[in-house]
Amino acid sequence: MFAVTAARIDADDPLSGLELGERPEPEVPDGWVSVTVRAAALNHHDVFSLRGVGLSADRLPMVLGCDAAGTDPDGNEVIVHAVIGDANAGDGDETLDPRRSLLSERYDGTFAERVVVPRRNLVPKPAALSFEQAACLPTAYLTAYRMLFEKSGAQPGSTVLVQGASGGVATALIILGRTAGFRMWATSRTEAKLERARELGADQVFPSGARLPERVDVVMETVGQATWAHSVRSLKPGGRIVICGATSGDAPPAELTRVFYTQLSVVGSTMGTRDQLVRLARFCEQTGVRPVIDSVRPLAQARDAFAAMIAGTQAGKLVLTP
Amino acid sequence: MFAVTAARIDADDPLSGLELGERPEPEVPDGWVSVTVRAAALNHHDVFSLRGVGLSADRLPMVLGCDAAGTDPDGNEVIVHAVIGDANAGDGDETLDPRRSLLSERYDGTFAERVVVPRRNLVPKPAALSFEQAACLPTAYLTAYRMLFEKSGAQPGSTVLVQGASGGVATALIILGRTAGFRMWATSRTEAKLERARELGADQVFPSGARLPERVDVVMETVGQATWAHSVRSLKPGGRIVICGATSGDAPPAELTRVFYTQLSVVGSTMGTRDQLVRLARFCEQTGVRPVIDSVRPLAQARDAFAAMIAGTQAGKLVLTP
Amino acid sequence: MFAVTAARIDADDPLSGLELGERPEPEVPDGWVSVTVRAAALNHHDVFSLRGVGLSADRLPMVLGCDAAGTDPDGNEVIVHAVIGDANAGDGDETLDPRRSLLSERYDGTFAERVVVPRRNLVPKPAALSFEQAACLPTAYLTAYRMLFEKSGAQPGSTVLVQGASGGVATALIILGRTAGFRMWATSRTEAKLERARELGADQVFPSGARLPERVDVVMETVGQATWAHSVRSLKPGGRIVICGATSGDAPPAELTRVFYTQLSVVGSTMGTRDQLVRLARFCEQTGVRPVIDSVRPLAQARDAFAAMIAGTQAGKLVLTP
Amino acid sequence: MFAVTAARIDADDPLSGLELGERPEPEVPDGWVSVTVRAAALNHHDVFSLRGVGLSADRLPMVLGCDAAGTDPDGNEVIVHAVIGDANAGDGDETLDPRRSLLSERYDGTFAERVVVPRRNLVPKPAALSFEQAACLPTAYLTAYRMLFEKSGAQPGSTVLVQGASGGVATALIILGRTAGFRMWATSRTEAKLERARELGADQVFPSGARLPERVDVVMETVGQATWAHSVRSLKPGGRIVICGATSGDAPPAELTRVFYTQLSVVGSTMGTRDQLVRLARFCEQTGVRPVIDSVRPLAQARDAFAAMIAGTQAGKLVLTP
Repeated sequence: MFAVTAARIDADDPLSGLELGERPEPEVPDGWVSVTVRAAALNHHDVFSLRGVGLSADRLPMVLGCDAAGTDPDGNEVIVHAVIGDANAGDGDETLDPRRSLLSERYDGTFAERVVVPRRNLVPKPAALSFEQAACLPTAYLTAYRMLFEKSGAQPGSTVLVQGASGGVATALIILGRTAGFRMWATSRTEAKLERARELGADQVFPSGARLPERVDVVMETVGQATWAHSVRSLKPGGRIVICGATSGDAPPAELTRVFYTQLSVVGSTMGTRDQLVRLARFCEQTGVRPVIDSVRPLAQARDAFAAMIAGTQAGKLVLTP
Repeated sequence: MFAVTAARIDADDPLSGLELGERPEPEVPDGWVSVTVRAAALNHHDVFSLRGVGLSADRLPMVLGCDAAGTDPDGNEVIVHAVIGDANAGDGDETLDPRRSLLSERYDGTFAERVVVPRRNLVPKPAALSFEQAACLPTAYLTAYRMLFEKSGAQPGSTVLVQGASGGVATALIILGRTAGFRMWATSRTEAKLERARELGADQVFPSGARLPERVDVVMETVGQATWAHSVRSLKPGGRIVICGATSGDAPPAELTRVFYTQLSVVGSTMGTRDQLVRLARFCEQTGVRPVIDSVRPLAQARDAFAAMIAGTQAGKLVLTP
Repeated sequence: MFAVTAARIDADDPLSGLELGERPEPEVPDGWVSVTVRAAALNHHDVFSLRGVGLSADRLPMVLGCDAAGTDPDGNEVIVHAVIGDANAGDGDETLDPRRSLLSERYDGTFAERVVVPRRNLVPKPAALSFEQAACLPTAYLTAYRMLFEKSGAQPGSTVLVQGASGGVATALIILGRTAGFRMWATSRTEAKLERARELGADQVFPSGARLPERVDVVMETVGQATWAHSVRSLKPGGRIVICGATSGDAPPAELTRVFYTQLSVVGSTMGTRDQLVRLARFCEQTGVRPVIDSVRPLAQARDAFAAMIAGTQAGKLVLTP
Repeated sequence: MFAVTAARIDADDPLSGLELGERPEPEVPDGWVSVTVRAAALNHHDVFSLRGVGLSADRLPMVLGCDAAGTDPDGNEVIVHAVIGDANAGDGDETLDPRRSLLSERYDGTFAERVVVPRRNLVPKPAALSFEQAACLPTAYLTAYRMLFEKSGAQPGSTVLVQGASGGVATALIILGRTAGFRMWATSRTEAKLERARELGADQVFPSGARLPERVDVVMETVGQATWAHSVRSLKPGGRIVICGATSGDAPPAELTRVFYTQLSVVGSTMGTRDQLVRLARFCEQTGVRPVIDSVRPLAQARDAFAAMIAGTQAGKLVLTP
């Protein structure tokens, strides 16, 4: 079958390790199932893999891709949950299983005509979502879903500040949060990105580091070092920072005194459970909200999609179709 | 000032105790404030008061009405929180204060040109909501908000069954729940009410007692005895019934074995906190959703509004304006 | 191997179905493990099984017994978790898996020289507990642990009322709750049982239905119908009933008005997770508290233990040793 | 009345600002009450006050002291809750009221013959506790209570690591945690303090920074910078750091990647609510555990107690009696 593969690791020139071409048909272990991929979506994770983050050379070649929607052998339309883990080993949450992995880390990923996953990783695709839309959900949107609806502890109508409004998860946070009735505020360093955040539904936008009109209930962090001091200062007593990334660096001064004295919480989050992916798909179905897609390309043009992601020029998800 | 008052209690002929006319200007205790009422909304609570439920004869005459929006002495547009209680006495929640009351139970209510309440019971009215819309929020919609967003423990995308889809809180549950992305299912005994529930946003509707296509995460109970057995049987293991009323009777067999064996929870709820009312108003502002209003009448025609509520012919809130 | 088996179901004469004798050595499926039983403990569940509750005739003969401690094939001392279920199928909790069962319902139980269970059902036995003590934990004490420390939502120092203080779970609740610093109150119909509850650590005891000196934070229900009205009336606003049984009947009037108006919760609970069994064993180890044992008998005298349980004459757990 | 007062602020020589002598009888505002102090206990907070932390020169002279037990005007034995705050202003928690203060910050403290506090700040003193013991609870022990039983999210039997085992809160954590059945592990830089931690009930002790035999459920942080990296590395996936102080510095690198990738939480905590103080007192009563007291001195020898606290030579609470 045709697939997009990491054939070599190169931290400086990730694209050089990308290979497109025929790969042997995957075997299907007991309890696993082969999904015919109808659409897959790119994430920064795929570029990180080519740089060797989370993917070691001894596992190459590895088919890339975490996100996919397609059909199972019975013809059911499905979304693929990207977390390969066991809730029994993770205190009831497969993302806490110490041996969990994401598709394309230990098992071949979704940028192929077929992907093989444990049967329980299949989630029904609502008919109202296209394959392209459904393929955008399992990573960035699922991460945002869990941050908003499980980890934030906030109730609709609360004020949620998204730091660095232009990233993949940040975009998903603004879209999902506004749809669910949170008051979403966003920051960014550039006027163009603030304008974009406003178009996505942010109630108010601010230049990075700006003093806010009032303190917020929750801060969503994906930036880290560059925004940490501002995040800590923007919260009400008892407020919460939910963090899923630290693209600008992960070692800001922790500001522990402020954390304990105003009784803040800092809550780490990554990905989400299968049950949460089911609910995310239904949330889209019920509200009519859809992931924002930048462009759809055939799998054979995956190199262009990777180049766009590295350049950071996309506005929305980059989708590939076999 | 002009006001609508309970002058006499009559359980069988509640309307006979209703009096409209001039009342003395209310005094304003320290820390309280006089609100100029711009709109008020009826609830079944007002009819119950005339029947003597929650209102004893020695407190008469009592101005009726729990819900209001208006302006404070500085001209700010405000919504009035109807719960007179102290969080310090209620384990952090004023609705758990053993001495709490609702407006019109111990202190004069909102069906008047002015209502006097503790200053902290004022909540900012978003400009996007009219006074008439804002006046609908503090009782039925706040009750629904708390049931959905605090008590249900559910995340958006979960399936929520509303028993008896036509009541005031049930209507609010369908509207708020659908807006926030829950999959709302509803039951009723009449086809017309099911049709109405569907128009309000219910994803699927069922005749009362019907077998559902799958078990649900949460059941919202306002009916009680007539639907209890069905509610208990409709839940997934670990599911939850949230209950705020029992209009058909409160003494169904409790079905304790089913409750413990499938690890269900039954969670009582009534009204909501001031903070939740703030969030509810913002939720309406951010999502664009609005309470459904049946009709707006001048305060002087309050008797017609009471008659409509007793007849049960309204479709939405009955609003009065001084 | 020697085992105690349900050979026949008889609702009226449960003992008549009990058979002691040689049974074939059990097979060990992949991922399962054979435990050499060193001690096992009786529960009412075992008598219910002989009456046909939870055990159908087509599964006979079935080795009885849920509770055990013993050694695994590597010689490690282990406690056996009795719930055969999958957290992935139960929203993160194996006791919510719709296909879960207890040992002796679908798979042979613990009243035998060897019992075969999934490897993850083994929990390390602290050296400080004897096999006899450890064998008492997996059913009654685990149920009590979960009710107190997960389901009650109470913090140490809260007041917890145990209805019907003499049952197996009720005894465990008093012992564990008092040890952890809850203020345990207990009710019973007989003075002797109240005296016993006091000896176990109850802070105050009351005849069934007595008016309490103050309202409590939590009521623990194992009795059901006979105590329900009292339970509902004994709680503070916002209080919680945790229920794991209803020996006197499961159909008292539900008292829904009181439930919603004072915002009570009724929380069903049964058994506990493997992780909770690990913590329960450590809790015993750290605090020095031990299950109360009535008597230890060789497996060959199991009939006497069953007879004692049916007569209700025991004071503590009935332990069997192969 | 006789009192111990901060008369001057001196960051370098705190003792120089301490004055003992007669002070005017305090006035008693409406809703407040005068408590006859029977015992009071020192905290580092009192030394910080003399250094000017949380106490500005314009508020001098200020009677020092947060902790006290005594009798109210009706002769009831009471413990004084040190947090002057309003749950209505703090989202249901008076410690989140932005205008809250501790006794001796805005209102005169407890190192005096009488202290005046809001009536609701009185908590019943269990007869089983002496005044000296009860006076130790409201600050260090209440802080530990809330960290363990509200903020940690852990259940008895969980493993809890206390960093820096010798401080006032750390000592209280070990004592309360062990009593309630947690497996308490502790670290310190000196062998003597580890020995002491073991005597207090720590299950295992480790030199600071040591590799632990297994990862823990919760880390209790009072040290901050010196132990942060170790704390973050010592937790299971999904684990939690609860922090109430940062005596070694508050600006370690935050390690955000580890926080989000292993889904840790960092939860700030300070003091506790009145309701928690009630439960803490009952917890002591029910379990028999008592605060560890280093010494009891008459109020007139307060200077010696302050000197001991600055020297750090005490082993337990320093109690003063008028």
